[in-house]
Amino acid sequence: MRRFAIVGHRARTSGDFSLNDLPGGAGRMDVLCRCVNTAFFLSHDLRKDVECYLVLLGDPAPPKTVRFSGVHLRSLNPDERSAAALLKKALALPCGDEFRESSPGVAVRQGGLARLIEDMPLALLHEEGDDLRNVHPLPSGYLLSDHLNFTPEEEAVVQDMPRISVGPVSLHADHAITVVQNELDRRQHGWN
Amino acid sequence: MRRFAIVGHRARTSGDFSLNDLPGGAGRMDVLCRCVNTAFFLSHDLRKDVECYLVLLGDPAPPKTVRFSGVHLRSLNPDERSAAALLKKALALPCGDEFRESSPGVAVRQGGLARLIEDMPLALLHEEGDDLRNVHPLPSGYLLSDHLNFTPEEEAVVQDMPRISVGPVSLHADHAITVVQNELDRRQHGWN
Repeated sequence: MRRFAIVGHRARTSGDFSLNDLPGGAGRMDVLCRCVNTAFFLSHDLRKDVECYLVLLGDPAPPKTVRFSGVHLRSLNPDERSAAALLKKALALPCGDEFRESSPGVAVRQGGLARLIEDMPLALLHEEGDDLRNVHPLPSGYLLSDHLNFTPEEEAVVQDMPRISVGPVSLHADHAITVVQNELDRRQHGWN
Repeated sequence: MRRFAIVGHRARTSGDFSLNDLPGGAGRMDVLCRCVNTAFFLSHDLRKDVECYLVLLGDPAPPKTVRFSGVHLRSLNPDERSAAALLKKALALPCGDEFRESSPGVAVRQGGLARLIEDMPLALLHEEGDDLRNVHPLPSGYLLSDHLNFTPEEEAVVQDMPRISVGPVSLHADHAITVVQNELDRRQHGWN
């Protein structure tokens, strides 16, 4: 199983945002939607062996975590609006401490980064980490931030994680996921 | 200069499409918008050394080619709607055989793949090509198709191009561009 977790620092935590304004009113939900795209899509297929966790910290009810599970996902198309529509539906659902399914393969719970880290091991994708290509074996789970840096409180939570870099220039979160997927694909298929 | 050219087989060639329906009415314009994103965006910067060419073959006035030039680009944000808004503006402009600027860094002309190939050398990103990591030196220009395969007529045009593969599984065009950018970044910065 490959896991990607992305922190959306301003991402809306109710389903009342407009699909026509994902960067603005939805709190850069566009960033998270592109991460869902790169976590799951192959050319004419979905990656079933992937889980993607979006940690949403914007108003009005933070923190919430939405989980996309490749093995059960339906109705996800590659465009940003498609992932956003599934998020709207998840965030409109009353939720508690445990994941509750809002549509096939999509579930939501209350709770944020600290709780997620208790559930699974994650490595931090970070400009100053070790080169991905030199890490053997590669971790199965990766944590990224959206367009904003981690806060000091979050830094304290992630400080003991292994740090891995995807390359010499700083990339958007979704692009970093693509590079990780490519390296994992290559190793899985004996291309390295 | 890095160049990426993407063929949009059904992409609308007038500016009358809706930003709310890029996959449908606009002829999978969402695919092309994501390619523009991966061609240009760094974490908090635009790649100035990139040109991205979109070859649009859908109704009502094919073929047209839209050029995005990183060194002059303004008003491009990462979300799909942002690139699509620049495309709408370009496709609303009457155009002839030479590129005509519709907004800073964006220009449009009549003409398709055959003409583009006369203008610049391109390598084909293809599942059955040589592994990108083993190609020295790497080409500066890359051709990709959208969600559809090249037609037999297009195959005839591209048959003599070098073929390069980004990995063992077939990827979306925008993901393939990200992998190419990463390899080019690594070589440019001595990471390989």
